[in-house]
Amino acid sequence: MKTTHTSARPKRSRTLAAPNLVVVGSVAQDILHTAAASTGKVLGGSAIHFANAASFFTTVGVVGVVGDDYPLDQLEFLRGRNVDLSGIARVKGDSFLWEGRYTPDFLDRETIRTELGVFAEFKPLLPEHYRKPKVLFLAAIEPRLQLDVLNQVDRPRLVAIDTFKLWIDVARKEFLKVLKRADLFLCNDYEVQWLTGEHNLFKGAAALRKMGPKWLIVKKGEHGSFFSSGNGIFISCAYPVMHVVDPTGAGDAYAGGILGYLSRCRVISEKEVCRAMGWASVIGSFYVEGFGPDGLKNRQFSDLEKRYAHFQRLFEIP
Amino acid sequence: MKTTHTSARPKRSRTLAAPNLVVVGSVAQDILHTAAASTGKVLGGSAIHFANAASFFTTVGVVGVVGDDYPLDQLEFLRGRNVDLSGIARVKGDSFLWEGRYTPDFLDRETIRTELGVFAEFKPLLPEHYRKPKVLFLAAIEPRLQLDVLNQVDRPRLVAIDTFKLWIDVARKEFLKVLKRADLFLCNDYEVQWLTGEHNLFKGAAALRKMGPKWLIVKKGEHGSFFSSGNGIFISCAYPVMHVVDPTGAGDAYAGGILGYLSRCRVISEKEVCRAMGWASVIGSFYVEGFGPDGLKNRQFSDLEKRYAHFQRLFEIP
Repeated sequence: MKTTHTSARPKRSRTLAAPNLVVVGSVAQDILHTAAASTGKVLGGSAIHFANAASFFTTVGVVGVVGDDYPLDQLEFLRGRNVDLSGIARVKGDSFLWEGRYTPDFLDRETIRTELGVFAEFKPLLPEHYRKPKVLFLAAIEPRLQLDVLNQVDRPRLVAIDTFKLWIDVARKEFLKVLKRADLFLCNDYEVQWLTGEHNLFKGAAALRKMGPKWLIVKKGEHGSFFSSGNGIFISCAYPVMHVVDPTGAGDAYAGGILGYLSRCRVISEKEVCRAMGWASVIGSFYVEGFGPDGLKNRQFSDLEKRYAHFQRLFEIP
Repeated sequence: MKTTHTSARPKRSRTLAAPNLVVVGSVAQDILHTAAASTGKVLGGSAIHFANAASFFTTVGVVGVVGDDYPLDQLEFLRGRNVDLSGIARVKGDSFLWEGRYTPDFLDRETIRTELGVFAEFKPLLPEHYRKPKVLFLAAIEPRLQLDVLNQVDRPRLVAIDTFKLWIDVARKEFLKVLKRADLFLCNDYEVQWLTGEHNLFKGAAALRKMGPKWLIVKKGEHGSFFSSGNGIFISCAYPVMHVVDPTGAGDAYAGGILGYLSRCRVISEKEVCRAMGWASVIGSFYVEGFGPDGLKNRQFSDLEKRYAHFQRLFEIP
């Protein structure tokens, strides 16, 4: 497989600045159907949604793979927000395409097609200047690839991971190895039960912390999220959204908000994680207001600040 | 049907003090099964769970009906917390009995039997000294009975109502009349959709406010609750519970916490509703820690205060 790094594109000199935050994940295109509308191919993939959010806070380096059909020009808005795309390999073949349809209440979705294309052969290779990140995020890719990335970096200050059901089912043993090396596991509520067999989320989170990560953030979609550490629980509400357009990528963007914020903290403390969750809730709320990355794409940081100020008033007891 | 009011019992004189808060609902016995244990007959019914909670804050008068088999002596703990039981009619026949089994995750339950007994002929009749309450709560009884009670009282400062799916299905028209006369509707998340057809809870809540009540509190169980008024949304988390024993009655107790707190406020404002929701979350958390009313039965107000102080630290961004 012949690989061309997009760093060959003229915009960057050869001596690139090291990004604070590196994400390894999918770079895809999605075709989305909701009760209200359908899209053509829109930008998708965990690494794109993550970078879209994290870039409001810090410098981000993206590691992924696309086919020669990928509309790289559509990623220019990310470059404009200090996202380094030189870790995206461009190879001969088709890009990852996912097509899906949401139920009217957005609580479930049906996959119409998944064409992995070049993503099926993804071998993440970090550019030299990505190898000492302050924070590393391993999105929900195959656990053996997550392990491989961990072996390419100097120990970051924070290693955060995500996964999804498939990997828990087919590569549980490898995933447990990744979990052991993670500081923060960002998971969905149902994954807590799949991994621990525990019905109670708070007990399940405590059980997961014994399996490796000192910190857990459990995402519950529209019901918010909570942070579990050895010092207890912190609960974050979801910002109320009146008009959900498309939830695709909101979980990845939420992770991007958390880790983007933490990457610019002098000390990555539990207090800062709680603050990060507030920003991530705001980001998640913008995200579901548009298809694919659109809900956040054309936002300014001042938009986020305004909603964050309102967010605090939503739950602080007067 | 010959009715004996329990006020005939020797504990009370004939000139009774008017309770601040009156609740009309079921007084029952439950047999409960969970993955961990089964009970014999325990105290149940919306009015009992409500009064159990509300009596931490204010004087409560209960209106209900029991058969001559009902263990009234088991309600003595409520009298000890200033609950006036003189509105409970005791009639010849069997008391309301419900038996049910929860799924291991407590997200669903199966009814094994419902024996309405004397509750099938319930005709709420408010004792004279109940007829000018500051706050009235109509638990989930038949809508025409709710309307009947509204016609027995001088306009309270706050009329709050609850309902359940059966009444929305079989007596929708009457329920909509009740809704028109309510200030506050305390409903479950799924009821918002059943009543409005709206998938988005926040939009649904706004739609329900147009049907009568100026205020709505939408209960989401373990996911907390939110308050919807013309001035916007307030979100309340659920206090995290590690060991759920039995969720029976927690929704009624939550309502009791809200309205008990509001009954002792000089002005029943939106700010006070937000504060009430904090107390109600704490009450809900105690409630699920025991079978039937036991989670709250032997608690002191100082237990509630201690957990409330912790509760605020759970979600206030540091």
